[in-house]
Amino acid sequence: MKVTLERNHLLKSLSHVHRVVERRNTYPILANVLLRAENDHIELRATDLDIEVTESVPAMVSTPGATTVPAHTLYEIVRKLADGAEVRLETDGGENMVLVSGRSRFNLACLSPESFPDLKSGAFAHDFDIDAAALRELIERTQFAISNEETRYYLNGIYFHAVDNSAAGALFRAVATDGHRMARAEIAAPAGAEGMSGIIVPKKTVGEVQKLLDGVEGEVHVEVSDTKIRFTVGPVVLLSKLIEGTFPDYERVTPKNNDKQMLVDRQGFAIAVDRVSTIASDRGGKAVKLSARNGLLELSVTNPDHGTANEEVAVDFDTDGFEIGFNARYLLDIITQIRSENAVFLFNDANSPTLVREEGEANALYVLMPMRV
Amino acid sequence: MKVTLERNHLLKSLSHVHRVVERRNTYPILANVLLRAENDHIELRATDLDIEVTESVPAMVSTPGATTVPAHTLYEIVRKLADGAEVRLETDGGENMVLVSGRSRFNLACLSPESFPDLKSGAFAHDFDIDAAALRELIERTQFAISNEETRYYLNGIYFHAVDNSAAGALFRAVATDGHRMARAEIAAPAGAEGMSGIIVPKKTVGEVQKLLDGVEGEVHVEVSDTKIRFTVGPVVLLSKLIEGTFPDYERVTPKNNDKQMLVDRQGFAIAVDRVSTIASDRGGKAVKLSARNGLLELSVTNPDHGTANEEVAVDFDTDGFEIGFNARYLLDIITQIRSENAVFLFNDANSPTLVREEGEANALYVLMPMRV
Repeated sequence: MKVTLERNHLLKSLSHVHRVVERRNTYPILANVLLRAENDHIELRATDLDIEVTESVPAMVSTPGATTVPAHTLYEIVRKLADGAEVRLETDGGENMVLVSGRSRFNLACLSPESFPDLKSGAFAHDFDIDAAALRELIERTQFAISNEETRYYLNGIYFHAVDNSAAGALFRAVATDGHRMARAEIAAPAGAEGMSGIIVPKKTVGEVQKLLDGVEGEVHVEVSDTKIRFTVGPVVLLSKLIEGTFPDYERVTPKNNDKQMLVDRQGFAIAVDRVSTIASDRGGKAVKLSARNGLLELSVTNPDHGTANEEVAVDFDTDGFEIGFNARYLLDIITQIRSENAVFLFNDANSPTLVREEGEANALYVLMPMRV
Repeated sequence: MKVTLERNHLLKSLSHVHRVVERRNTYPILANVLLRAENDHIELRATDLDIEVTESVPAMVSTPGATTVPAHTLYEIVRKLADGAEVRLETDGGENMVLVSGRSRFNLACLSPESFPDLKSGAFAHDFDIDAAALRELIERTQFAISNEETRYYLNGIYFHAVDNSAAGALFRAVATDGHRMARAEIAAPAGAEGMSGIIVPKKTVGEVQKLLDGVEGEVHVEVSDTKIRFTVGPVVLLSKLIEGTFPDYERVTPKNNDKQMLVDRQGFAIAVDRVSTIASDRGGKAVKLSARNGLLELSVTNPDHGTANEEVAVDFDTDGFEIGFNARYLLDIITQIRSENAVFLFNDANSPTLVREEGEANALYVLMPMRV
């Protein structure tokens, strides 16, 4: 292999693919990035056996060929080369790849490309184009509620599926929950996504896709099978395994008859919750109690070791004497997601799930379990 | 105690004193800040038994008195109060202090001020005023070389002392070393510092003083005894124990007869060292080898697991064939300190300490031990 390309092109591509490579690997080859030069480009590929990221970069190929070199080391080297420099990569079929740029020369230990794993994609049952901004929004609105509990592995991702809603037409919905709170966001289903059954996209994949979408405009191509999903974002292709398991019936836990509605200024409420939670203990689950009285909502926190905190905020709520407790952290996570000036709370009672959403037409919905306070 | 003051004044002062409070404490009172209200101010004080920081803040005192409350909690609360708000602090002699600001009300658990430790200052033998910028500079230029090795506790700080130099008059000098590198910086001795014998100021104190000096102009008052040092920076007073021990005779290890002089562009050299060290292993001590040949300096790194890196930089150096190795990290630390366009290296041989300094008149000097490569 002998190839010349621009440092900036190589860096951008490496920044996409190297992230998927784990820092510690049982198999040495998993620490490497596969480089394959042919025609007028070089293809970069990295994998952790669950996710595989591939990207092609324009290059002047003198001798086609392939090799693999340590991904993080190559990324660090290229990052430190001068902006706009030219980079030459060359192998002689031996155990080293030579990288030359300006007065710098590196010899990097290679491993044979033959043994580089291939995350076979298989056949896809569905494929569709989705607006990059819309996909980014679905992820941003639900990601925080993904569970990190490994025993409930089927909650360790975002559940995407198509919903046939007669009123609004087909919808494409993202749902995440950790059993304490649930986040649901939806958009009109892209053509080709209708009828798609549910898939669970792992948390790491969600994070990588989110980074790939950063600043991207236009459409992203998505292909889905029973076990895999493939995203094509410009020149980058990300193939990932799906989580095999059954996502819980989230509709069943979404309250339908919460009739006590409270409107509160989102920003003022968030500041107050943050302030009173300062003295909450982590042990106590950071519980904050809300009590409604005369058009005011009192927020209070009691920590036997540190003391108490109280604050009042003005609310539009007519159920005097209503009391309920929440985990302050979870409450803040949700309030942060609200974009309208006011947040709408729909309560049932102090032991039942509470619904939170934006004012007016909203394509996102949040459910929060109360805490005993 | 009953007192009213401005949130911004209280926050600024807490930000100075709370940092000294350790997160984990054997004695609960050490987690607290002492508040003492009298006349037209409130005094805040915190300590870790080695350092004590005290500051007075203007306040309207209705009832004089004192108490202690958890320092980090109080800081977090005040930080989250509205900019420019008024804060009322009140105790009834019981176990709580009430903090009220706007619609927020906190009850904080107190401990009696009687048991708050006092780091008695004793009598000071020397005292002088030093320009804040000059003190900041002495710290910045030497701090990086402080040793973290607890067994050599007498190296865990900066050694300050007065030097009687007949040519330049009395000098005030800061020295730090970890046995691998040494940094020395000096200024004309401030009036009152002449004849001061050496003191070792602990690393944590150095860091706190550095933060207190941030953005400060004018003079800082310094008082020194055999066991303590006291800095007065505007309204803040920092009293610290000194490290008891003997600082090594650094003059003896400062090379006097290094006659091989090399001039190299500071910035280009730093970039090259950083680049080739990418493939250096931490295990191998990140060794970089320098070899002079035909007006060029070759930098090379060999890592048996990863490969090799080479780079050439232009130098002004006439000892052809000279070779020496350094720890890349230590070399970069020193190069970063050089302010002139070129760095001046003075070598003896591959096994002897190397001297590094700025071009022209320089008030700082660095010594670096070579590595076998």
